[in-house]
Amino acid sequence: MTYWWQHAVKPLDEAARAMAGQRQNSLTKPPGSLGRLEEIAIHLAAMQGREKPQIERPAITIFAGDHGVVAEGVAAFPQAVTQQMLANFVAGGAAISVLAKALGARLEVVDVGTLAGEAVAGVVRDKTALGTASLAQAPAMTPVQLNHALAAGQRATQRALAASADMFIGGDMGIGNTTAAAALSCALLDLTGAQMAGPGTGLDAAGVSHKATVIDRALALHGFLPSPPAPPPLAGEGSIAVLRCLGGFEIAALAGAYIACAQAGLPVLVDGFIATAAALAACRMNPAARDWMLFAHASAEPGHARLLAALEARPLLQLDMRLGEGSGAATALPLLRLACELHAGMATFAEAGVSRED
Amino acid sequence: MTYWWQHAVKPLDEAARAMAGQRQNSLTKPPGSLGRLEEIAIHLAAMQGREKPQIERPAITIFAGDHGVVAEGVAAFPQAVTQQMLANFVAGGAAISVLAKALGARLEVVDVGTLAGEAVAGVVRDKTALGTASLAQAPAMTPVQLNHALAAGQRATQRALAASADMFIGGDMGIGNTTAAAALSCALLDLTGAQMAGPGTGLDAAGVSHKATVIDRALALHGFLPSPPAPPPLAGEGSIAVLRCLGGFEIAALAGAYIACAQAGLPVLVDGFIATAAALAACRMNPAARDWMLFAHASAEPGHARLLAALEARPLLQLDMRLGEGSGAATALPLLRLACELHAGMATFAEAGVSRED
Repeated sequence: MTYWWQHAVKPLDEAARAMAGQRQNSLTKPPGSLGRLEEIAIHLAAMQGREKPQIERPAITIFAGDHGVVAEGVAAFPQAVTQQMLANFVAGGAAISVLAKALGARLEVVDVGTLAGEAVAGVVRDKTALGTASLAQAPAMTPVQLNHALAAGQRATQRALAASADMFIGGDMGIGNTTAAAALSCALLDLTGAQMAGPGTGLDAAGVSHKATVIDRALALHGFLPSPPAPPPLAGEGSIAVLRCLGGFEIAALAGAYIACAQAGLPVLVDGFIATAAALAACRMNPAARDWMLFAHASAEPGHARLLAALEARPLLQLDMRLGEGSGAATALPLLRLACELHAGMATFAEAGVSRED
Repeated sequence: MTYWWQHAVKPLDEAARAMAGQRQNSLTKPPGSLGRLEEIAIHLAAMQGREKPQIERPAITIFAGDHGVVAEGVAAFPQAVTQQMLANFVAGGAAISVLAKALGARLEVVDVGTLAGEAVAGVVRDKTALGTASLAQAPAMTPVQLNHALAAGQRATQRALAASADMFIGGDMGIGNTTAAAALSCALLDLTGAQMAGPGTGLDAAGVSHKATVIDRALALHGFLPSPPAPPPLAGEGSIAVLRCLGGFEIAALAGAYIACAQAGLPVLVDGFIATAAALAACRMNPAARDWMLFAHASAEPGHARLLAALEARPLLQLDMRLGEGSGAATALPLLRLACELHAGMATFAEAGVSRED
């Protein structure tokens, strides 16, 4: 049996990449002098299958879920904040709401498993359950729940595609989700809790230490403690078990959305710690999904650097952001757009009558 | 006698800074979680004297000049490119032209001393001379020329202010100007040519080595070789002598513009290697000018890191850019704007009914 997430991703367009590379070297500037803006334009050309890529209709989807592990005292904010923020996203008061408006981006909020019993106006309700089980006590999700959350991500991608999106940004909301993301990352990267746990929304040193202990307990419970010598990285079915036991509904939805984007050929701009943990899970489930991912920023959450390294990702921004919600990716979006503008709008040496290198 | 550039700069508004800081801590996010975007909004509040700063009318001014030192074989591109690029800036084909259009910024091009004998349509002609003397043979400028170039920068700032600019970006164009900027920086920072010379627009290793030799020759000629034990940093009259002997017309104009901005209270977003060398000279001439400078990016030009360190500046972007023209600063501008949007547009915890930390 194959699952939908195992289906092939769309290949990149190597002819468009080559044309874009040639164009970059003909523009009136020393070759390479626009640095990573050149790389971005060329990579986007390969993704969009045209010499001159553009980002006109970015889509931002926030997935929200609650986490049973909050009962272990791992979060700096009360669990009710997950639900309270749903209304704030829709009302326009959250960081990602302000960014989406400033960028002219479509913003969709999906409740994929918060504790909110009632529907929230303006929020897409695609609920898996009223929060996960505590990953320190039991598998966070049942197999049916995991499949629902992954498919909720796929459905969100389909809605973005129906709205003609040309760039996908996934965001997360879920009090406790840095614990789930760190636990998931430990299992996928063969690390201990202390190597991945960070302050999240604002734990002090004692709080971080407690969080690491909770993660180690969960790793032991589910059989994912690091074992010397290091085993091969968990992939395929193994990574699915990790995501189910240690993940969260919004993390699984992000992973599902990323894979669906890669299958459809919709470029993804990956946000911070939570989103990158989801991206790592997605790449373990379907490695070619990596081709469709750009990485927006290096979060202040210390474990993020390990995730980025594992994905061989070099993020665009390092602004000490650590908010989630897709806010780091949204902040990086103007760089991608300017890269496209420069690539399409600059004159060539021949057009401008400018001399080349001696 | 005091010179115009010694006059006091406008003080920052500490009351506005405090109000902005309080506002940041009331917004619906963990305190500090927007990282440097919070710092930027608070610093801009102090600059603009209001709790909620905005950047609505950015002004970009490119200063172009030619360099006698090109005769020493220090540049990868022919000297004619300086003049050719004047037309490209105005025609819209240069990187900064594309960026200015995308950002809705005012773009002014000032010929402050290229070899162009004729006026170029659309270019402000405020010429000091037809290029500098070779800094490896003689002082690059006479005292009269230096005063003209500094004042040309001041005049450009005045035109930006007359256009109601609320942010100033200075850019540079001048084949050979990384040699001048490196030589100037060596003298101000007590370094040797090898410590500051880099590839510029594309020198190979032998070219960089030759450039370092030319710089050392110039430092010796003008009496600015590093001397053990290190002397106190050159300031005031000493830095003026350095700028005159080793600088360029566009570098002096940038320094003059930056000081004039600080005196008028117009925030400056400093670009890369050339612009930062000019910023260092400006801060030696009038140290409080530093208060009005934000630093956009870390250039791929290796000496830039030393300049940023000397100015205690932490740039926003590290994208391996090395083009000049103000292109790195223009690329960073959307980050400043998003910082302002977030600061002004996000809901407070009280407004949104969101709970704070436990």
